Amino acid sequence: MSFFFYPRSVAVFGSFKRGAIAYEILRNIVEGEFTGKILPINPKGGTVEVNGKTFRIKPKLNEPVDVAIIAIPAKIVPALIDEIGPLIKGAVVISAGFSEVGNVELERELVEKAKKHGIRIIGPNCAGIFGVHGKFFGSFEVRVKPGGLALISQSGAFGGAALAMGNDEGIGFSAFVSYGNAADLNESDFLEYFADDENTKAIALYIEGVKDGRRFMKALRYAASKKPVIVLKAGKSASGAKAAASHTGSLAGSYEIYRAAFKQAGAIEVDEMEELFDAAKAFEMYPKAGKRVAVITNSGGPGVLATDKLEKLGLEMAKLNEETVQKLRSFLPPQCSVRNPIDLIADADYERYKRTIETVCRDENVDSLLVICVPPIFIPSEEIARAVIEAECDKPLIVNFMAGELVREGVKLLEEKGIKNFPTPERAAKALKWLSLR
Amino acid sequence: MSFFFYPRSVAVFGSFKRGAIAYEILRNIVEGEFTGKILPINPKGGTVEVNGKTFRIKPKLNEPVDVAIIAIPAKIVPALIDEIGPLIKGAVVISAGFSEVGNVELERELVEKAKKHGIRIIGPNCAGIFGVHGKFFGSFEVRVKPGGLALISQSGAFGGAALAMGNDEGIGFSAFVSYGNAADLNESDFLEYFADDENTKAIALYIEGVKDGRRFMKALRYAASKKPVIVLKAGKSASGAKAAASHTGSLAGSYEIYRAAFKQAGAIEVDEMEELFDAAKAFEMYPKAGKRVAVITNSGGPGVLATDKLEKLGLEMAKLNEETVQKLRSFLPPQCSVRNPIDLIADADYERYKRTIETVCRDENVDSLLVICVPPIFIPSEEIARAVIEAECDKPLIVNFMAGELVREGVKLLEEKGIKNFPTPERAAKALKWLSLR
Repeated sequence: MSFFFYPRSVAVFGSFKRGAIAYEILRNIVEGEFTGKILPINPKGGTVEVNGKTFRIKPKLNEPVDVAIIAIPAKIVPALIDEIGPLIKGAVVISAGFSEVGNVELERELVEKAKKHGIRIIGPNCAGIFGVHGKFFGSFEVRVKPGGLALISQSGAFGGAALAMGNDEGIGFSAFVSYGNAADLNESDFLEYFADDENTKAIALYIEGVKDGRRFMKALRYAASKKPVIVLKAGKSASGAKAAASHTGSLAGSYEIYRAAFKQAGAIEVDEMEELFDAAKAFEMYPKAGKRVAVITNSGGPGVLATDKLEKLGLEMAKLNEETVQKLRSFLPPQCSVRNPIDLIADADYERYKRTIETVCRDENVDSLLVICVPPIFIPSEEIARAVIEAECDKPLIVNFMAGELVREGVKLLEEKGIKNFPTPERAAKALKWLSLR
Repeated sequence: MSFFFYPRSVAVFGSFKRGAIAYEILRNIVEGEFTGKILPINPKGGTVEVNGKTFRIKPKLNEPVDVAIIAIPAKIVPALIDEIGPLIKGAVVISAGFSEVGNVELERELVEKAKKHGIRIIGPNCAGIFGVHGKFFGSFEVRVKPGGLALISQSGAFGGAALAMGNDEGIGFSAFVSYGNAADLNESDFLEYFADDENTKAIALYIEGVKDGRRFMKALRYAASKKPVIVLKAGKSASGAKAAASHTGSLAGSYEIYRAAFKQAGAIEVDEMEELFDAAKAFEMYPKAGKRVAVITNSGGPGVLATDKLEKLGLEMAKLNEETVQKLRSFLPPQCSVRNPIDLIADADYERYKRTIETVCRDENVDSLLVICVPPIFIPSEEIARAVIEAECDKPLIVNFMAGELVREGVKLLEEKGIKNFPTPERAAKALKWLSLR
């Protein structure tokens, strides 16, 4: 299936008027600096300009390409697949108007034509795909930075919103696939594929329902055995399930069954969209973490909030060993608390943070660190960011730099080094919880 | 107590070297455009320049002022209070080094001097106060925009971080008070005061523990009878309570007792820092809302997520009456779902949103609306923002414009009109939950 995410050539079918779907996809592919061959196709021919570059629109495809992206009226899609089948390996069908609006027969026909030519289909009724490391942005959704997260989304719009919000959260992506009606390839195929994709460190899955539960369990178990799989299930409530049915036509089924299945397969279920990002951020950094957490803070209150959340989530406040406590006592001012949470107080600087992180990290009772920083009064937040970056520590370390604008420069510095920030103590604590589930 | 938040004159005691606490407070007062008299005081005299304006530093206070802000070494604070007592109405003692580090006697002395002169004390060991509508920023924390939220925080650093994050979230503030050790005035006094402050629409309270539970209950009940009171309690867990004790010296006590007390008093307890903001945003807009929610969306997935969360939180998906359904059917494209959640599908524009909001708002089965917008493909998000702003609807309406950068302009437009955005469907659903608790 890798030809979908690392294609050498692509044909785009549809209208290339500015603002039309096919045009937007072409623009994304070109602006994303795809290095392979790009063929815009429309029976009317003509030219299309993207980013100052002019493409001839071919009236029909007459050479082999890896992937066809199709955004033409649903009715004529099966005929097109039949026509170009011998020339392509797979097609991404963006077009809507299939089973999701009752046109089951049309969708059946689409699959039949694909089978006839031995090609694979993503969609129909989908938002497209990204193979980020292949610089292939085959979707009209916003482009993203390369990284370790593969996002598989049953809902195109959810996926698109998640990509944009992922950009804001500093998440890097390996791939994105919106699989729509899943007429041919479905969530299970993508789980299996990304489980083996070496650029993918973690998989995030948004589903409303699956058709083949047995297959799904197998794929989920396989993927979760290879890397973290984060699942957000929509349609958990009675009304939600009903709404999902009218949205993607999927039978949401009993949520309790899904829930048990996720757990049994070793996937990490999150309850909210924001948690999907936070878990993804955590797993892009670390494959897992133990349960015994040391909290380091320059402010008591947030340290207490983190402690509350960690305990509530079933994690443990690490009991520092005596050697660690004495070492901390030796260089920290007497007002500092050397019990966990360790309070470095308001005037904590680079040195105090760095030495504390290093000392605590060497304690065998500590599995992971949660480092909190409220805006330091006398120094810029970048200094604390540098302390976090430069401290020698080989254990998972989650940071919570608080207070938006006031720590922006520090957060930027951290992100440049691949250290993602969690904006509240509780969100940081939850990140450690998810890491502990692996 | 209003002289603290709407003073006519203020004296600041401490060092006015750049970066020193007293200097930073003076800077904040001057930059915040305080219109009353400002007197920097230090025995060494001299001058201090702030914002291109030069102030003479008086060696001692020799004229009456409403408020003294004190950032001098703890040891000499009681003597200063004794000296200036006859000239002031109240003092905000920023200085640390009192009961929180075991100097109980020093704190007792401070209170004694204040009582002797009949003046009131905020602090010691606090971050100061803001009276935002009085343009009085008597703290070194970041200044905020005027609005309806009074923030009362036991932890100064938490308060400071919350103010900065509140700025990012578009929250407007009426006041801020960090009350530190609460040697004299405490959380109960502030609750009662802000309950009657006409510029305050909602009160947010961060506490670790209270000393006088009976008094607190009375004050909380009184405040909650007047306006929404949102409480974030830190020190809920065993380790958290222990950490709180070493932080503010307060006995956190059994969380179950607090929890019951909050409920009984009619306060709204939130579990996380982010929820404190979200509840504050909701209550800055609306005093309350009923339980029957109509969800309007341009994307199925997020509509399902909102539905799931609403049901999980015990709210109801409003059952639209037949007239509403037929009216919607009359102008919406056939692919749209007119059942709740109402899916306007991807190409929804200004007109479709506006008419739908207006139609649904008139349904007597609907108490409140949750309007979701993922980035529209063919039009800018501002158009949907305009539809929300211009729709005639007199019921609480919570918006969730999703996807950061892609909807930034729309969100900006909404915020200019006082409509605060909730970035995920779940956070929007929670906002409605809190509104339903009033």
